[in-house]
Amino acid sequence: MNGAQSLLQALRRAGVEVCFANPGTSEMHFVAALDAVPGLRSVLGLAEGVVTGAADGYGRMTDKPACTLLHLGPGLANGLSNLHNARRAQSPIVNIVGDHATYHRQLDAPLTSDIEGAARPFCDWVRTAASADALAGDALAAVAASLSPPGQVATLILPANAAWDTVRNDQPPRTSEIAPLAAERPPDASIEAAVRIMKSGEPTALILGGRATRESALWVLGKIAKATGAKLFAQTFNSRISRGAGRVPVERIPYAVDQALAALRPYRNIILIGAKAPVAFFAYPNKPSRLWPPGVRIHELVRVDGDIAYTLSALADAVGAASTVPEVARLDLPTPPSGDLTPDNLSPLIAAMLPANAIVIDESITTGRTFMAATETAHPHEWILPTGGSIGFGLPVAVGAAIACPDRKVIALESDGSGLYMPQALWSMARESLDVLTIVFANRKYQILRMEMKNVGVAQVGPQASALLDLDRPAVDWVGLAKGFGVDAYRAGTMEELARQVEVGLHMKGPCLIEAVLA
Amino acid sequence: MNGAQSLLQALRRAGVEVCFANPGTSEMHFVAALDAVPGLRSVLGLAEGVVTGAADGYGRMTDKPACTLLHLGPGLANGLSNLHNARRAQSPIVNIVGDHATYHRQLDAPLTSDIEGAARPFCDWVRTAASADALAGDALAAVAASLSPPGQVATLILPANAAWDTVRNDQPPRTSEIAPLAAERPPDASIEAAVRIMKSGEPTALILGGRATRESALWVLGKIAKATGAKLFAQTFNSRISRGAGRVPVERIPYAVDQALAALRPYRNIILIGAKAPVAFFAYPNKPSRLWPPGVRIHELVRVDGDIAYTLSALADAVGAASTVPEVARLDLPTPPSGDLTPDNLSPLIAAMLPANAIVIDESITTGRTFMAATETAHPHEWILPTGGSIGFGLPVAVGAAIACPDRKVIALESDGSGLYMPQALWSMARESLDVLTIVFANRKYQILRMEMKNVGVAQVGPQASALLDLDRPAVDWVGLAKGFGVDAYRAGTMEELARQVEVGLHMKGPCLIEAVLA
Repeated sequence: MNGAQSLLQALRRAGVEVCFANPGTSEMHFVAALDAVPGLRSVLGLAEGVVTGAADGYGRMTDKPACTLLHLGPGLANGLSNLHNARRAQSPIVNIVGDHATYHRQLDAPLTSDIEGAARPFCDWVRTAASADALAGDALAAVAASLSPPGQVATLILPANAAWDTVRNDQPPRTSEIAPLAAERPPDASIEAAVRIMKSGEPTALILGGRATRESALWVLGKIAKATGAKLFAQTFNSRISRGAGRVPVERIPYAVDQALAALRPYRNIILIGAKAPVAFFAYPNKPSRLWPPGVRIHELVRVDGDIAYTLSALADAVGAASTVPEVARLDLPTPPSGDLTPDNLSPLIAAMLPANAIVIDESITTGRTFMAATETAHPHEWILPTGGSIGFGLPVAVGAAIACPDRKVIALESDGSGLYMPQALWSMARESLDVLTIVFANRKYQILRMEMKNVGVAQVGPQASALLDLDRPAVDWVGLAKGFGVDAYRAGTMEELARQVEVGLHMKGPCLIEAVLA
Repeated sequence: MNGAQSLLQALRRAGVEVCFANPGTSEMHFVAALDAVPGLRSVLGLAEGVVTGAADGYGRMTDKPACTLLHLGPGLANGLSNLHNARRAQSPIVNIVGDHATYHRQLDAPLTSDIEGAARPFCDWVRTAASADALAGDALAAVAASLSPPGQVATLILPANAAWDTVRNDQPPRTSEIAPLAAERPPDASIEAAVRIMKSGEPTALILGGRATRESALWVLGKIAKATGAKLFAQTFNSRISRGAGRVPVERIPYAVDQALAALRPYRNIILIGAKAPVAFFAYPNKPSRLWPPGVRIHELVRVDGDIAYTLSALADAVGAASTVPEVARLDLPTPPSGDLTPDNLSPLIAAMLPANAIVIDESITTGRTFMAATETAHPHEWILPTGGSIGFGLPVAVGAAIACPDRKVIALESDGSGLYMPQALWSMARESLDVLTIVFANRKYQILRMEMKNVGVAQVGPQASALLDLDRPAVDWVGLAKGFGVDAYRAGTMEELARQVEVGLHMKGPCLIEAVLA
């Protein structure tokens, strides 16, 4: 057995089932090992951002790591922006990054670079395998690191000779490394403090992050909210929020600073549950960066890497809400209007169209500002957002979510600017026949930047600046792009056309893209 | 004047004329300043790899830095792989990377990351601007760093508040920072040693890198070679090689290890001129990493950051070759064959089609293995290769070369696998009406990896491995992709079709793509 086979076997033993890959020469032994060690499904991405984004989507939906396979420093580099999102989504991921043979590195061949240095700013755990003998243990340690709370990005660098050398004496991993760390429970005093705050009679907001926005946690939170009158907010960007009919509704903190300040202004206390104290996404001249009003008391009840399920259960008991029945959203589907494709008209259609158990990947940016409010009473679904603010996450994450959940419809709500960072993901959808309906909202500009220009205090946008904000010369033909990548595609110019095409897209099994050209 | 305007003014003063950009909110003041400080041409890329690759192409053709504009850590990360190539091409580049306002960083908002840490593995010079007052000096220092031999990648991180704050007391840059370092001359003893080697009567190879493969340097090298009998080799991957009729021909060290060993075997001495001692691109089991035979003497005459022009002139004088007339290639255009699209048939067509002064960007990988030999007697042209081995460089570099040299035809020879890393570059070609003819050689597989599988000793490629090497399910429709991005496109299935379409592409002014579907 060579090192690559040993590595793969260990990954399989640790429960890894999928490998998203964009390999090169230094990874050929790993690739060959995929046939020798059965059970790992390999999925090719045409660009590394697809690979890492898919691993993020897979991790968000399964709470298990997929592995990626990337080609030296530049291959890793192309995948880093989606790893940034993944890390802030607490997605477990195990990256395998090929490197030159150990004795070749010192020669500074063209592809040589500081791979560990490149990985470190975007990964929680980084290691270079020392030899073929070390690989099985390294793989187990990487998986354990990825599964350690709250979910981490682990990167194992695989020198080519470690992959091709024969394994002679498997080095057992250190015992401390093979099991994920356990999530810690907060001290009783912290729970008691939260109880005192909620019983104080002062208006209190609970801000939720990490797994606190999953269905079961929200159910308990709904009990607590009903019993205490506390308000539930989700962080602006969460890994995944369970929503729709039958779920406890949670309001998202708005992205715009003024709206966020207004939303939080009524509260005298903020309790953080897997969330951080709320801050502005960007700084703006003459606006605060912190979103809580002066004098508000902030209590960190449980961190994102803490035991959120235990904490919520203990809190519900302590406030006497264990048998409270929470308020949940009731199914209420709007009738989509006809006419122009505008954000206001689109929202009811999105709400009405969502099939039960849909997974929504939302990178609709400005077009979709009202989509979440509109879908609160839609069929139950999961809503996934770009947690790290790195653009181009939508289509790759849709690939991974669809691989993770083949029986659920994935709906990618994509803006034309964002979608153009990694449209190659469409090819993986076609290749794997993934059940993804993508709607691209084409306003043919970076509309968010036009708005942000005003927010940062720029009154006049001149022609040079406009040339960096507009996408209309030439307009991208998304239908042509999608078909070029092998995905069925349609263009809608009216609400009626879009509704008909959505109907088609929802009823087919497999990928489909609709370019909705906004009025 | 705010910091962004001060920065832009300083860049203009230092001779920067083009900004390749993919901005976000934190860069809005820089974008707005483009209208306040005239003279910088801004070029939008839909993805950051396009931006940095274009800056590389521009730098290779002008020896001047373009600036890039990138959005925080993830935006930089997406551009790093092409910066890796740029750095190994000695391309001068000044990256401007926006960051959060300094006071906002500590809040760990979603887009926060260690930008300096991400930049360092791929950049020669990294600095974070401290304030608006510091920006003019920082800009001059960044440009000077980029122009310091041999040409460097400089990255200046621009906090949002440094961009929007009013400049009060411009901090003058340190004198030591505003002028590029000078290229150093090698000691006389080094030149004398080279002379002794070449006069020894032993077979000697000169291996050329950096600016030693430019027309004027090759002219002097041609004299030296003729006078001494030394053989001229270019490194396998050079920034740019001047070739074709009237130029001194130089053989490229083959990529394949066995061929490279065979090419260098006859020589007892190797003299390095702006090049490194030749090593294999990758390590392979049971093959050497060093490409020179045992016992060969290696003499580093001048490093890539040394004064190559002076050194060659001094060497020519010392070997008595100052007035020698070198052998140059004579125009000899083959007649392209008809029939199937095979690499062998394609080579003569490529040679016959190249217009005088063309700039060839060659990412044709396996299809193009014989293109360079075939084009030695073509019309004079420049040949550009992926210096760092990072894939996807071709189309972005073509964008930058076309912006740099609007009066020359740019020919991008692209393979279908490589081209799919950054096809978004096609849109920038359409938007800027760049005179680029792209030919995509579609073999619908990662053919190089199929070959490398054998080289690394894998005898049997199973179905799982094949799924990561083949691109035929579905085949990408490059004509559809190109048209989707606004570029005229044609598909060729025979040599006759390709020849006709090439004729069309060469005679139009503006971008055009041909998908050559290989037999």
